[in-house]
Amino acid sequence: MRSIKLILAYDGTAYAGFQRQPNGITVQQRLEEALRSVTGEPELRIGAAAGRTDAGVHARGQVVHLHTRAAIPIERWPAAVNSHLPDDIAVVAAEAVPPEFHARYWAREKRYRYTFCISPHRLPLARLYSYHWPRPVNVAAMREAAALLVGRHDFAAFRATGGSARTSVRTITRLTLTEEPPFLHMDIAADGFLYNMVRIIAGTLLEVGAGRRTIARVEQALRTGDRRDAGRTLPPHGLCLEEVVYGDGPVRPPWARETAPDADLEP
Amino acid sequence: MRSIKLILAYDGTAYAGFQRQPNGITVQQRLEEALRSVTGEPELRIGAAAGRTDAGVHARGQVVHLHTRAAIPIERWPAAVNSHLPDDIAVVAAEAVPPEFHARYWAREKRYRYTFCISPHRLPLARLYSYHWPRPVNVAAMREAAALLVGRHDFAAFRATGGSARTSVRTITRLTLTEEPPFLHMDIAADGFLYNMVRIIAGTLLEVGAGRRTIARVEQALRTGDRRDAGRTLPPHGLCLEEVVYGDGPVRPPWARETAPDADLEP
Repeated sequence: MRSIKLILAYDGTAYAGFQRQPNGITVQQRLEEALRSVTGEPELRIGAAAGRTDAGVHARGQVVHLHTRAAIPIERWPAAVNSHLPDDIAVVAAEAVPPEFHARYWAREKRYRYTFCISPHRLPLARLYSYHWPRPVNVAAMREAAALLVGRHDFAAFRATGGSARTSVRTITRLTLTEEPPFLHMDIAADGFLYNMVRIIAGTLLEVGAGRRTIARVEQALRTGDRRDAGRTLPPHGLCLEEVVYGDGPVRPPWARETAPDADLEP
Repeated sequence: MRSIKLILAYDGTAYAGFQRQPNGITVQQRLEEALRSVTGEPELRIGAAAGRTDAGVHARGQVVHLHTRAAIPIERWPAAVNSHLPDDIAVVAAEAVPPEFHARYWAREKRYRYTFCISPHRLPLARLYSYHWPRPVNVAAMREAAALLVGRHDFAAFRATGGSARTSVRTITRLTLTEEPPFLHMDIAADGFLYNMVRIIAGTLLEVGAGRRTIARVEQALRTGDRRDAGRTLPPHGLCLEEVVYGDGPVRPPWARETAPDADLEP
């Protein structure tokens, strides 16, 4: 038995999210079908994915692990699996890992990007991978609000119902805004995310940038934990799971100690 | 009667090209349907488009002109038309022009970009707007070959059958390669293009970069006019009409004097 880590990229437009579910085609389903063809193991399932991206969310660096008896050399895995995948999903790297490796429990940090397209009129070539906003935004104000969120905080106000994590304390290690006109990228890294947390933070910062929410109100959201003090949840198509960073073993951040990590939906 | 110039952006993926035709939905058809709804003029047709992009080719700066009696203020045109267009086509600017303005005959220069995605494995998020090439390329060699093509030349070797321009002499004013990993952009500007000329030049430079065609052979293509001395025609989805530059009146480059410009297909 060998243990393998795969890095995946996908266009989430056509999928009902990453994780297998009864209604709708998911990335996991397509991936497992491809892996079963490649390995000849009809029961093969992946062990876990680092982030269970929602319907419509994209990935450039999703990570999964699996166990297999297939003898394919590790460097052949991406091309072998890709030949069985549709063109909106691809394996971009494969790596042999120890049998204890776990794509979710070993993840030290996850990095997401939310992209805004700031343009008076919608731009068809950007429509699938960015959220269109038709008016100028105050990026300096957005950065000021972002700075408040960096660090270890209770993000209860930035969490949608539907997640079942028992604590909402997380540590954001990076939250930056980068202008690349007509795009504005929000890059966020943390030890873990609550359900819809990235899309709610993106909505909150956008409202600050549009002059529709004060920075004091964002501070209040952190203090009160009241969902109404944070902004709205932006749509999924602006969001992309960029990268997952691993250490040499399982990670036990404070929130993971008190939670069944499998119950923690993202993002 | 007022004369209006519209700048259009579109994702060509779903269309059988720009120009109306009996088989398949075209950008022109969708645009004229929207313009008829907005103006209430059921017979409205656009006067011309600057470049008749082929099936699958994209645009960020296509230009059309039209004549109308509609009294909508010029600054309202983009939003008004966009509300009737599908989300893969948009008007990004509108301008009042003199009645003699012609989107094709007044075009002084057209700028196209062909984008390569140079990556060992295909990248799903880039698949619709770039041509995937799995191996490294020698960009310096590509630039050397590109330099040969700049200027006034007979591009007979870089033209697909199907175009009916009577002369194949054109002037390329710019042909550059810009690396933005994993992308490599080929930007080309000229006073006009022959049928498939940009995609054949892209194919020729890629073959040079991949070590499959010598620079001497490219020189030979210019000299002989033999299609076999140039590279293959790359697929349309890497190509985008970026911008059309206008002067203050009709342009009469040497080739336009001897040609019925309506017969000149692009790109």
